[in-house]
Amino acid sequence: MIKISVIGTGNLAQHLISAFQLSDEIELVQIFARNRDKILDPSYSEKIVYVFEELIPVDLIIIAVSDQAIADVSSKIPFKNSLVVHTSGTISLDALSDSNRKGVFYPLQTFTQNKKISFTEIPICIETENATDFQLLEKVAKSISDKIFAINSEQRKSLHVAAVFVCNFVNHLYHIGNSICEDNKVDFEILKPLILETANKILEMSPKEAQTGPAKRNDQNIIQTHLEFLMDQNQRNIYQVITNSILENGKEL
Amino acid sequence: MIKISVIGTGNLAQHLISAFQLSDEIELVQIFARNRDKILDPSYSEKIVYVFEELIPVDLIIIAVSDQAIADVSSKIPFKNSLVVHTSGTISLDALSDSNRKGVFYPLQTFTQNKKISFTEIPICIETENATDFQLLEKVAKSISDKIFAINSEQRKSLHVAAVFVCNFVNHLYHIGNSICEDNKVDFEILKPLILETANKILEMSPKEAQTGPAKRNDQNIIQTHLEFLMDQNQRNIYQVITNSILENGKEL
Repeated sequence: MIKISVIGTGNLAQHLISAFQLSDEIELVQIFARNRDKILDPSYSEKIVYVFEELIPVDLIIIAVSDQAIADVSSKIPFKNSLVVHTSGTISLDALSDSNRKGVFYPLQTFTQNKKISFTEIPICIETENATDFQLLEKVAKSISDKIFAINSEQRKSLHVAAVFVCNFVNHLYHIGNSICEDNKVDFEILKPLILETANKILEMSPKEAQTGPAKRNDQNIIQTHLEFLMDQNQRNIYQVITNSILENGKEL
Repeated sequence: MIKISVIGTGNLAQHLISAFQLSDEIELVQIFARNRDKILDPSYSEKIVYVFEELIPVDLIIIAVSDQAIADVSSKIPFKNSLVVHTSGTISLDALSDSNRKGVFYPLQTFTQNKKISFTEIPICIETENATDFQLLEKVAKSISDKIFAINSEQRKSLHVAAVFVCNFVNHLYHIGNSICEDNKVDFEILKPLILETANKILEMSPKEAQTGPAKRNDQNIIQTHLEFLMDQNQRNIYQVITNSILENGKEL
């Protein structure tokens, strides 16, 4: 059994804790909570500690806290030479304190509170300073997911930017679609099958091959009609820059 | 049996023809093809006509051609007082010739050649000039789909703009994510579970509730890091305008 403690009680920490509880290869030893008011599953209560000094050495400490807190939290771990990893897409491995061996354990998914998720399909990007630690981290990752990728800090940074485009920005476009429907008394339900099919398409073809629409066809009549239709300045700006990008992209072909 | 003929041999026309062939309530009478070279399922060959004069009166003519050709095609139908509908998201019902009764039959989905699709889940937006025609069109729509919506020409226009955001523009963001991965030698596969989860989330919550990411948190450190990372001007522009839109949207709360 690999002994693991988790620092943090946010969305990701809670999803990780649930996943580790289901694994036969992982023993969850302690959970560090900064906030005593945070509601956690009562079955964990004996494992929770509130002061760093109570943390005991384990095979792996996973720091699942906000990016800004990672360096500080890692410096407060009261023992040395253990493997300590953070879970951030943007913070370098070097941000961790030198008193322990460093690594990154970055599950690339959008975690929402109270929305259950199966870890099996979630890609976990791992990075360590040496091969032995890599093997340990890989074993931990494989105990909860089928998709493990060796990703260094530079690659992880690019992956995080890409994730902002395909997740956060995509969701904002869904929001704009929803707003346009509301403004025109159209049921947003009508768009949901289209949204799902658009996502599913990229499992079968590249996004470049899947591109359709007025910008792809350079249909200036429709583009102008749509720009005249859009009254909201943010929506117009977004329509304009994405249309330009699709048009220029078409030219490269 | 409702007698239907389809004008057109593009993606949508072919998907419609396949769906009608499976329905017990529809008799597909004729298919009008402008282009003799277009490859169609050989089982349809007896139904294909190449000149408008050969079209015979039926209960419903569905014009599934490009937006620009709709008015011209509708004026060439060699009989009067039948129900003639087009399938466009952007063209008004009025664009159809006055010699026949007018309607719109707009299936809101992205159709790709050679990618099979089940019509059952595709919302079909219908519009007619009178109630009797609406009943007929509704019956036809229900024979292939479970989701029928009465949508007038103004609403349909807004729906088409919304669809450009949630489908065409979303796909372009997938393309940017893919490009960033390629530029940094990262496997795009890593992002696919995130893309699917982002789409699936809106089945359970509104896009506004589902919004996450640096712009939502107004995390200016990460936003600046990302903008410094992005070298491509189109990618920077898109990052900037969507981030601004998310930030301003957050303020409204």
